[in-house]
Amino acid sequence: MMLNTDIQSLGPAQFRSPLQHGGLAGVRFCQDGDRVLHDHGLAPAESAFRHHEAPMSFEVAGPRERLFFEPAKTTAGIVTCGGLCPGLNDVIRSLVMALHGRYQVTRTYGFRYGYQGLIPRHGHTPMILRPEALSGIHAFGGSILGTSRGPQDPAVMVDLLEEMSIDQLYVVGGDGTLRGAAEICEEIARRGLKKSVIGIPKTIDNDIQYIDKSFGFETAFAEAVKAVQSAHVESMGSLNGIGLVKLMGRDSGFITSYATLAGSAVNFALIPEVPFQLEGSRGLLEALRYQLARQKGAVIVVAEGAGQNLLPTDPNATDASGNRRMGDIGLFLKDRIAEFFQQRRIEITLKYIDPSYIIRSVPASPQDNVYCSRLAQNAVHAAMAGKTNMLVGRWHCSYVNLPLHLISHGRRKVDPHGELWQSVLEHTGQPAQLY
Amino acid sequence: MMLNTDIQSLGPAQFRSPLQHGGLAGVRFCQDGDRVLHDHGLAPAESAFRHHEAPMSFEVAGPRERLFFEPAKTTAGIVTCGGLCPGLNDVIRSLVMALHGRYQVTRTYGFRYGYQGLIPRHGHTPMILRPEALSGIHAFGGSILGTSRGPQDPAVMVDLLEEMSIDQLYVVGGDGTLRGAAEICEEIARRGLKKSVIGIPKTIDNDIQYIDKSFGFETAFAEAVKAVQSAHVESMGSLNGIGLVKLMGRDSGFITSYATLAGSAVNFALIPEVPFQLEGSRGLLEALRYQLARQKGAVIVVAEGAGQNLLPTDPNATDASGNRRMGDIGLFLKDRIAEFFQQRRIEITLKYIDPSYIIRSVPASPQDNVYCSRLAQNAVHAAMAGKTNMLVGRWHCSYVNLPLHLISHGRRKVDPHGELWQSVLEHTGQPAQLY
Amino acid sequence: MMLNTDIQSLGPAQFRSPLQHGGLAGVRFCQDGDRVLHDHGLAPAESAFRHHEAPMSFEVAGPRERLFFEPAKTTAGIVTCGGLCPGLNDVIRSLVMALHGRYQVTRTYGFRYGYQGLIPRHGHTPMILRPEALSGIHAFGGSILGTSRGPQDPAVMVDLLEEMSIDQLYVVGGDGTLRGAAEICEEIARRGLKKSVIGIPKTIDNDIQYIDKSFGFETAFAEAVKAVQSAHVESMGSLNGIGLVKLMGRDSGFITSYATLAGSAVNFALIPEVPFQLEGSRGLLEALRYQLARQKGAVIVVAEGAGQNLLPTDPNATDASGNRRMGDIGLFLKDRIAEFFQQRRIEITLKYIDPSYIIRSVPASPQDNVYCSRLAQNAVHAAMAGKTNMLVGRWHCSYVNLPLHLISHGRRKVDPHGELWQSVLEHTGQPAQLY
Amino acid sequence: MMLNTDIQSLGPAQFRSPLQHGGLAGVRFCQDGDRVLHDHGLAPAESAFRHHEAPMSFEVAGPRERLFFEPAKTTAGIVTCGGLCPGLNDVIRSLVMALHGRYQVTRTYGFRYGYQGLIPRHGHTPMILRPEALSGIHAFGGSILGTSRGPQDPAVMVDLLEEMSIDQLYVVGGDGTLRGAAEICEEIARRGLKKSVIGIPKTIDNDIQYIDKSFGFETAFAEAVKAVQSAHVESMGSLNGIGLVKLMGRDSGFITSYATLAGSAVNFALIPEVPFQLEGSRGLLEALRYQLARQKGAVIVVAEGAGQNLLPTDPNATDASGNRRMGDIGLFLKDRIAEFFQQRRIEITLKYIDPSYIIRSVPASPQDNVYCSRLAQNAVHAAMAGKTNMLVGRWHCSYVNLPLHLISHGRRKVDPHGELWQSVLEHTGQPAQLY
Repeated sequence: MMLNTDIQSLGPAQFRSPLQHGGLAGVRFCQDGDRVLHDHGLAPAESAFRHHEAPMSFEVAGPRERLFFEPAKTTAGIVTCGGLCPGLNDVIRSLVMALHGRYQVTRTYGFRYGYQGLIPRHGHTPMILRPEALSGIHAFGGSILGTSRGPQDPAVMVDLLEEMSIDQLYVVGGDGTLRGAAEICEEIARRGLKKSVIGIPKTIDNDIQYIDKSFGFETAFAEAVKAVQSAHVESMGSLNGIGLVKLMGRDSGFITSYATLAGSAVNFALIPEVPFQLEGSRGLLEALRYQLARQKGAVIVVAEGAGQNLLPTDPNATDASGNRRMGDIGLFLKDRIAEFFQQRRIEITLKYIDPSYIIRSVPASPQDNVYCSRLAQNAVHAAMAGKTNMLVGRWHCSYVNLPLHLISHGRRKVDPHGELWQSVLEHTGQPAQLY
Repeated sequence: MMLNTDIQSLGPAQFRSPLQHGGLAGVRFCQDGDRVLHDHGLAPAESAFRHHEAPMSFEVAGPRERLFFEPAKTTAGIVTCGGLCPGLNDVIRSLVMALHGRYQVTRTYGFRYGYQGLIPRHGHTPMILRPEALSGIHAFGGSILGTSRGPQDPAVMVDLLEEMSIDQLYVVGGDGTLRGAAEICEEIARRGLKKSVIGIPKTIDNDIQYIDKSFGFETAFAEAVKAVQSAHVESMGSLNGIGLVKLMGRDSGFITSYATLAGSAVNFALIPEVPFQLEGSRGLLEALRYQLARQKGAVIVVAEGAGQNLLPTDPNATDASGNRRMGDIGLFLKDRIAEFFQQRRIEITLKYIDPSYIIRSVPASPQDNVYCSRLAQNAVHAAMAGKTNMLVGRWHCSYVNLPLHLISHGRRKVDPHGELWQSVLEHTGQPAQLY
Repeated sequence: MMLNTDIQSLGPAQFRSPLQHGGLAGVRFCQDGDRVLHDHGLAPAESAFRHHEAPMSFEVAGPRERLFFEPAKTTAGIVTCGGLCPGLNDVIRSLVMALHGRYQVTRTYGFRYGYQGLIPRHGHTPMILRPEALSGIHAFGGSILGTSRGPQDPAVMVDLLEEMSIDQLYVVGGDGTLRGAAEICEEIARRGLKKSVIGIPKTIDNDIQYIDKSFGFETAFAEAVKAVQSAHVESMGSLNGIGLVKLMGRDSGFITSYATLAGSAVNFALIPEVPFQLEGSRGLLEALRYQLARQKGAVIVVAEGAGQNLLPTDPNATDASGNRRMGDIGLFLKDRIAEFFQQRRIEITLKYIDPSYIIRSVPASPQDNVYCSRLAQNAVHAAMAGKTNMLVGRWHCSYVNLPLHLISHGRRKVDPHGELWQSVLEHTGQPAQLY
Repeated sequence: MMLNTDIQSLGPAQFRSPLQHGGLAGVRFCQDGDRVLHDHGLAPAESAFRHHEAPMSFEVAGPRERLFFEPAKTTAGIVTCGGLCPGLNDVIRSLVMALHGRYQVTRTYGFRYGYQGLIPRHGHTPMILRPEALSGIHAFGGSILGTSRGPQDPAVMVDLLEEMSIDQLYVVGGDGTLRGAAEICEEIARRGLKKSVIGIPKTIDNDIQYIDKSFGFETAFAEAVKAVQSAHVESMGSLNGIGLVKLMGRDSGFITSYATLAGSAVNFALIPEVPFQLEGSRGLLEALRYQLARQKGAVIVVAEGAGQNLLPTDPNATDASGNRRMGDIGLFLKDRIAEFFQQRRIEITLKYIDPSYIIRSVPASPQDNVYCSRLAQNAVHAAMAGKTNMLVGRWHCSYVNLPLHLISHGRRKVDPHGELWQSVLEHTGQPAQLY
């Protein structure tokens, strides 16, 4: 499927960038024609060009020589939406630093509590964001702006943007949030306004399409590793000790897979992408019994979205963000495992660990500090050049500008046949199929 | 109440200690008469001596010049019982190092899975413990020996000690475990054997009477602080965000109090020692509503044993260790708080964090490394000198030998009128009474 | 030697404390007569009372029912002096919180850059300290006030205190600083003023007499342990690898001893209290050769004040604080060891690690957070009651008020015959005497 | 420049891989023709294909369906060379796990102390490596095999490989080491042997050409960030405080740049790629004076290879690995800065921090755990398929097989005109040119 990956522009860029260029340490400006291939395999590229087709490619992110917005007259706004994720404060701080430090854009507002902050009747006064007040915020988890879930009326939000003369809106959030950003863009276009809306994609689950990795993911799975280690210690501490850990991952098993690979303790990793059965001679419970018989202990890590087919849930239930409400696979497994061994009169000691919000509320790691900082800078470069209706990402190690509509093309998944999952299978020694 | 604090002895100590003494760096031996006062207040001491009463005092721990056991012919055993606690591996390693390194006692066995390991029919072969194999174990949480809960038959255990020619048994565990150790001592005495049994008291809750602090406590509450910080971050991340953390502490609120004092984020700390009400104009729920109105966020930390009066529980339910089974105050509060605000149509975002076993399965901090090491050494000094039916502790910064029966004199509590709790009240700003 | 341990008072305390007392959760006030024994040994106490002598004792710290200062009219000042130490920000924050939160003293100034900040001609404007602005500072190392070394003119400082109507001065610093505080007290007394000066003793080396442990020490040695672990890893990484670490400790070896005990890697610990020789058949170098022959690697930890006799130094050299300027034992050992093995044509790989300021500039650990907080509160209790010319400390686990002059009675040392050093010898396996 | 990127093969692969393929969770095998473009820019690719030129590309790494080596008859060897780097133990462990777990290759030897371990006269007995003994080694820094620097005679090493029937040699090391591996390959080819030699490139400096990032780099710079934070704390702690940190980076400034970007404290970052002057009105010293005047504190981070032109050094001096011996820019700057301000009678407090080996001897972070694990697996996939004279890497997020000769094409550098360095300039606010 070939997708349109062109980036929308507000109009001709006529102002000179204040960034110093050339000389001994000046910047190298990007050209809008700079693009990187979506598929960097040799054969697909060759085939495309042989057939005179344009292969899918993404615009390279970075500073442009000419700007659409005149820095001295530009006002920016920032909003963070959805669940917390390590690095939100880094993104906020780096946006403000890049706006002030590189472009001398000195008016930046922070909207409070997600899209609610753009709806005046909620009464959340926007914060004025200055670099000096933000210098230490990356030492703390969370978002100094706060967040909220769920959509708001684009018309009301654009009214406020007009009223406050906001030229650039930076939206940090997941796919629901970014769909909201696209609606804001539509409303802006409908009114013929010249406002840039730039998304910075956030998902602690690392499952955004067309993005190498999402910010905060490394920090989060490193924190998850601690919970897995606890489970390992507990499983060794008792005869037939079972450590059971539930980790984040509604639709994808990246956190679970990486947390498994980072240690050597996990015996069963369960992810949404690979269905499993509990019962039967090749199901999880028998495999677990065999593991206890061999090693007198076991560690199970389950992503929250795994095994949903096993749970009695209401398929229509949704949460405030419109996400499907899931059954609690962790507590379900805990009960079923206990029951299974009780029936067989095998004494076990099962310790259930749900680190929940601990994983997402920590400060970003140094690697994520840097990554957030660079995403934010590219977001600012794009907005200043008049690009809009887009999000910044990293593709094959290059920072790129992606159209917002790409977010709707589904989520990235762990490929059961790929090396990541195969490595997990090797690490755990679990059967490739649990049924 | 004046308690008998005399330490029981297996008989005259007739062997010379191999510890080098005197000279430039030799050891200073302790005398059995060395004792420290239980109450080091000036007035109580003065009053006692004026009235020619002997004030309560404890025997000072440390190396003795003469030993009861001849090192070359001595065999030792170690057992760890009950729940995991940071520092167990440190204690094991330091016992073995002190036995080998200072006394040249080269045969030490580690019994597996608590007292079960002393019951042959369970089939757990004891481990032979050598210093070189243990050198890195303090980098890991848990116990390399494993643990189990609940008592075993003292007669069967002493049979095994006889069969294996174990002269010294080091028992690491909580009050139930130490009562078991006292029963082993009785059985040994009944048979006229010369075996030393030394307890090393373990409670992650820091609530052992006559002990300054229990090993692992500092590590544990430092870990708890991370959960509290998460709750703080979450509470700030949403409008009317409430972070609710449940911490360990069945009978005492030390972990909760210290975790509160170590940060500045907690608005309500709830401990078993200070009852509270939910309902009513001065109850927790109204105080929480007031807090949200003032600051739009709140952090609540609740010890698992707090507010048990509010819960519908079966007073006769007990767990494998014979402890009273408690209701889950954390989940109860979560539900009641949600309900309360829903009834009042106040939108809140409640994040519940239960770090559970994460807190107790981490490796010991450097401070606890050292503390465990010194407790273990004093245990070895005591056993070698022929002391038995005792536990090692630290009282007013002096290492002491305490008779095992002291453990039955109840647990230490947070004093609601003392400076610790008063500091907590100052930090939280919570009403001194929630009803 | 019997020292005068009476605490000086500014006069009768006539104001009622605002602290709630009695009831379900009220405070229990201390009486000035509450004292704890200096020597809590049973025999010394008994002997003293038999002979009708008053044994040395310390006043118990804590809240008093009646205050000398009327809270609403009281102004406080805080100054931090000397080298950085983990916990300074905790002390500052806790002083302000206790003043505001418990006593409603709302005017607190922070003097900048140590005693310099009390000398107007340096031009450092004092900071106004408010609790809300300080809530997160314990997440950062250092002192938000800054520090400086060296004394200043007491008369000029008291002039400023008068001018600013400062009633209470909290001085955080080491022995030089506290001698300066005593001079300020003298000047205040000379002028017949009613100002309280309270010291909070700071030494990262944990070597203050009459104080169980100094704040920041646990954090510091935990950080030192990381450097020791690095040295261990490096020593194992090469054939005949030698990891050499220099740690803080000018006059005492507490950091070195504790950092050694917390791991299992150190082969030689060298401290100021235990002299050693390099040369000769029983000197360090031959012992090191033997260690390499046995295990092909070695870790040496040396306190900066150790082995000063081996160095060619100028005995009259002093630094800005008037401390003796020391030779660099770390670099000296590095060179001598290299030379020694080169002469013997033994190939070694020596890695020298000097963590220097890394150890002292980290944020305080949770345990130190709590300890600083409680020291600060007791300082405030003392000042409010009109006590002066004193410092707060902890003696045998009780918080006490100590007269400032005690600081001049020398420093605490590691006792070469005590259990701490004996444990170090056991851990390292080093010869008790290296000459 | 178009380089030959073909991978050399030992011969036809005729054994069936034991890896399960297809089905629900089986592996997807790679084809040797799978390649990724070196330059994934759209325009260069288009231009190449338009002109019917083959653009430079790399072979994709991964499991092959047919193997050259029969697993049951295969013997492997592992050697780690050069300086320590976080992740070495992860690589060792993952190689052994992949060999045993995925291919059932059960004989793996670990050569001790780098290439020395392949020279019998050094007398280092190789270790037999089994997965169960390695399960916890990633918790420790360093290399369990030890390392050494410098080359050894390829003929003698190949003699040993023959004698021990080693079929696959995994070499972990930097460019010198990998050149040595290439010489071993030549010797193997000269003798007509069928032995695979696979390099796993190691450089803590992240400066290997054609490799996205080197393992251990993220861990190392995260550790460096702590030293920078210390310097920041110290610089704030005194009036005119200067924190000066020296970091690793002989030829490249990646650690310095990333450590700068991860915080917000650095005022001057100095790297080898960007020359600077000390003196003169636009030199570092005047810029530093201006910074102190503005903010009363400064943090300087200097890579060890920066400013070498300023130092009086012997250009012919080399170390054991043949690397140019450098002058110590850290100590040099420390002295020059002190002198500069002394001459101008400006009182400063300069704290110099050299974390040295602390940065490289820590255990790998979870992210590096995973990265090492995947590099190692791809190394094993390549060797089993009969590939040789190559190294495994990651290029634009794809794991690739690279010919060993690429290592000789110079090192990667920080591009002074690229976004990384421009971001550093923005963060520090330092002049783009210091002269």
